[in-house]
Amino acid sequence: MGSTAPGWQDKAEAKRQAVLDLIPAAWRLPTPLPTSEAQPDVTGTYVQQFLSAREIELTEADATTIVAHTTTGQWTATEVVSAFCHRAAIAHQLTNCLHEIFFSQAIAEAKLLDAKFAATGTSSGPLHGLPVSFKDQFHVRGVETTMGYVGWIGTFEGRKGTGKEKVHESELVREIRALGGVPFCKTSLPHTVMSAETWNNIVGFTLNPHNRLMSSGGSSGGEGSLVSLKGSPIGFGTDIGGSVRIPAAFCGIYGLRPSFGRLPYAGAANSMPGQNSVPSVCGPLAGSAASLKMMLKAVLAQQPWLHDPAVVELPWRDELASVLPASAEEMSTVLTFGLCPSDEATAPTPPVRRAFATVKALIEKLGHQTIEWKPPSHTRATELAFQAYTADGGADIHHHIGLSGEPLQWRIADYYGTKPSPPKTADQWFDDNLELFQYRRDYMDYWNSTAALTTSGRPVDAVLAPVAPIAAIELDKQWHIAGYTPWVNTLDYTAAVFPVTKVDAALDHVEESYTPLNDLDKAIHEEYNPLTQGNTPVGLQLVGRRFQEEKILALVEMLSTALAKE
Amino acid sequence: MGSTAPGWQDKAEAKRQAVLDLIPAAWRLPTPLPTSEAQPDVTGTYVQQFLSAREIELTEADATTIVAHTTTGQWTATEVVSAFCHRAAIAHQLTNCLHEIFFSQAIAEAKLLDAKFAATGTSSGPLHGLPVSFKDQFHVRGVETTMGYVGWIGTFEGRKGTGKEKVHESELVREIRALGGVPFCKTSLPHTVMSAETWNNIVGFTLNPHNRLMSSGGSSGGEGSLVSLKGSPIGFGTDIGGSVRIPAAFCGIYGLRPSFGRLPYAGAANSMPGQNSVPSVCGPLAGSAASLKMMLKAVLAQQPWLHDPAVVELPWRDELASVLPASAEEMSTVLTFGLCPSDEATAPTPPVRRAFATVKALIEKLGHQTIEWKPPSHTRATELAFQAYTADGGADIHHHIGLSGEPLQWRIADYYGTKPSPPKTADQWFDDNLELFQYRRDYMDYWNSTAALTTSGRPVDAVLAPVAPIAAIELDKQWHIAGYTPWVNTLDYTAAVFPVTKVDAALDHVEESYTPLNDLDKAIHEEYNPLTQGNTPVGLQLVGRRFQEEKILALVEMLSTALAKE
Repeated sequence: MGSTAPGWQDKAEAKRQAVLDLIPAAWRLPTPLPTSEAQPDVTGTYVQQFLSAREIELTEADATTIVAHTTTGQWTATEVVSAFCHRAAIAHQLTNCLHEIFFSQAIAEAKLLDAKFAATGTSSGPLHGLPVSFKDQFHVRGVETTMGYVGWIGTFEGRKGTGKEKVHESELVREIRALGGVPFCKTSLPHTVMSAETWNNIVGFTLNPHNRLMSSGGSSGGEGSLVSLKGSPIGFGTDIGGSVRIPAAFCGIYGLRPSFGRLPYAGAANSMPGQNSVPSVCGPLAGSAASLKMMLKAVLAQQPWLHDPAVVELPWRDELASVLPASAEEMSTVLTFGLCPSDEATAPTPPVRRAFATVKALIEKLGHQTIEWKPPSHTRATELAFQAYTADGGADIHHHIGLSGEPLQWRIADYYGTKPSPPKTADQWFDDNLELFQYRRDYMDYWNSTAALTTSGRPVDAVLAPVAPIAAIELDKQWHIAGYTPWVNTLDYTAAVFPVTKVDAALDHVEESYTPLNDLDKAIHEEYNPLTQGNTPVGLQLVGRRFQEEKILALVEMLSTALAKE
Repeated sequence: MGSTAPGWQDKAEAKRQAVLDLIPAAWRLPTPLPTSEAQPDVTGTYVQQFLSAREIELTEADATTIVAHTTTGQWTATEVVSAFCHRAAIAHQLTNCLHEIFFSQAIAEAKLLDAKFAATGTSSGPLHGLPVSFKDQFHVRGVETTMGYVGWIGTFEGRKGTGKEKVHESELVREIRALGGVPFCKTSLPHTVMSAETWNNIVGFTLNPHNRLMSSGGSSGGEGSLVSLKGSPIGFGTDIGGSVRIPAAFCGIYGLRPSFGRLPYAGAANSMPGQNSVPSVCGPLAGSAASLKMMLKAVLAQQPWLHDPAVVELPWRDELASVLPASAEEMSTVLTFGLCPSDEATAPTPPVRRAFATVKALIEKLGHQTIEWKPPSHTRATELAFQAYTADGGADIHHHIGLSGEPLQWRIADYYGTKPSPPKTADQWFDDNLELFQYRRDYMDYWNSTAALTTSGRPVDAVLAPVAPIAAIELDKQWHIAGYTPWVNTLDYTAAVFPVTKVDAALDHVEESYTPLNDLDKAIHEEYNPLTQGNTPVGLQLVGRRFQEEKILALVEMLSTALAKE
């Protein structure tokens, strides 16, 4: 490359501007936009001011409500998709949540769906006309995938001339289309995807729409922010250490981390894509547990196990939720919840503590049982996860960062260094796998042992836990979280996040007399500030064993319904 | 160790003798035993001469027949277990098929089962009193596990003082006991288990009971030989590249290679136990497809997914076989079988060709469809499998061989060298995993594409293939087989082996005019000798997609029933 070739900064800026330029003039917000300090919360009436009443009605409908209307011809695909495109465009201007925009393509596809409906009188599938967003690891025809890497701009996963550029689609995208869904945008993520914060050299930070001084979480932060602002009714993120759950919790929405092999990941981009011991999984984020359930059920009906060799033949199983009472109030069965309020190393800050206490009290009020969760060390689980994440010495990440010469974000460099280190050898990798297997077996034994403690005589039905000791972090602050989410990945368990409350300065006081457990815990508690962090959502996760998606979603639905009545 | 310490030869000989010494004097065969040349076939009337009429009745009953009698109190557990102990003792003297004998323990357990039955009037489970043998990778309390390594004698997997010696049991063994089954012996295998021949420095060769000049196959050769001689009604082997299927086919019995994650492997010994890309699986060998089905169903009812983290929650699913006609003759559904007569690189020898033609004709006679199977290269599949098997540079194998200083068998050294070579690095391992994933995906696409060729409109129901180009090999002859079995492991597909015929000098003439495809094919065909190899069984495998055990077993049962009527 000669000296006239543009540097990574120019490429990144051109890409950022090209995406913005795809927003129609009519959908541009008046400039200057308010600062985050001036307008931290851009949800609710703030964002509504830019939308018509009809657009508000359509975009504030839950995904299940939308398909109930589109599959019966009450709403057209075109009006639904157009409304979400508009609201997504606004969301991006307010929070930096998009990486790829393909609104015209989506609206054209919606028109085809409407024409087909008009001609046949039937819908094109259970997701007929439902707009679906995707984290920028999924390939969609017509647009590129950068995964936050400047070096991937104009390439296919960093390589040129593969013939796959802007043509190849990920298997999940194909299935969503086959169901009548309409992909319409791709969302932001940290380069490498190995971060719980969403920042990259192309779009910068993705903001939390409930408090734009706060992070949207990561690595599926674009999905968290977009879905939270109702710029998408449902979208797909990925989770290798908490990357669906953290943004879902930080942004106040629902998110599912299914077990590996439940949903198809084939044909999507990833970091260390051949790492098969603590692998990344894809999972939906949406405004309700019912939407997650509808999506999972719909995708499974596509028999993804016939198209992705990693997917297991597990159709939707209603019977997995049969242990549950028919409604939150009906006490046909006493359920038992394990209570896991912290990651052992640190304690939750006041808003998370309050959220946890709220749900604990609710569970008990509903007549269910809670027991203290005393499993094998979650610190150990985190170590095992990071053992897998870093086994290649960062070779993959540094290769892709090196394509453009862009700097690796400091928080990722904390784990991966600024250059590759020696990779593990295969025999070491096998030894690590044995440690992982032993940990999983010990945990399984512990879970089984709880049958002796429950009213039902069954082992614990699910475990309630925070996803972080904090509601969210302030942008670019040190990310002190490790142990609240990776244990679920180490164990390959099912977890779903649900919103519980929001940071409230009147309720969540700084506890002046708090005695920190250690330096890390001290730092976490010192960063908590109810005044600047007010209105940030607080979510919790409910964790079930491997492949218990049906049961965990049913439990989350039960708890959320009851929470709404409180 | 001083110079007075016994060498590996002494340890091996002592171990071999100690096992023989556990055979009660009354069960010793008159010496000298006939040579293999003098008495190649020791099945049928030959072995029956050493047994009572009652013992013959009990041991020649199928496993399903046995439990039908034991669970209803018609036969006692004690008489059944004792009869099999006797016959296993004879089998070992004739074929070298056992590594551990614990007949007294088994008979004592059978007596307890009988006492419990007498007291309660009910059986202790669906396998009440059924003797079950295990390949010497499974740990059973009271005895040790050598896995064929001299260096493991007196240790737990090569380590001393672990506290697990003779106490620890593998999860599968625990489940068999919970079902009422009675472990009674452990069977021979090649050290390292990475061989399709059964030989080690402790017991030497395990012979094929139908022709003792021939190999029992491997690596589950002890199971193949023992079950074939009806010294066990059912037993468990393992399969990483064909190790259940090859001995099942060579010895003329049925064997199942389920997909990884169907049956519990937890707590069993293995080579490269942390190798998780083309992993070993355990599977049963028995005298009928119905027995395999009964065993799989019984183990799954133990919910192994609650006790082994690698097992997937897939209970027995009758509906997977619902596509099949109710009987072999009823033509409610036309099934389609892919025909895969070779591994591309070599052609089958006359007896295998005849077996294949027999089953092809039978399928067509039953009114089902056959199509030519033209999948992605099976040679490539074999390369991918060996890439995984050898990724650690042989570190694991050479470590365990080195514990005693025993020599590594030449055929295993062909793949692993005589000392370790540099292992792959984690990033190379990840790249290999991507190649593996792409191969699996290409194969899946091919399988899906066959829907266009079938009468049913469904993709092919199963693929018929040999497990080797030969019926079996003569002892210690070069093992020229690579490509007939590992593709199933590379793809993690379900495969079941069933017996078809036996080498018959009158039918399976050497084809003098045969033009070999290449040097390998020439060597294979030159080694074929219908006179010395006569009476060796010939089996074939039926292969289905991942986790299709119910369907494949039903198809094998259908074909075997029809074959029996020919």
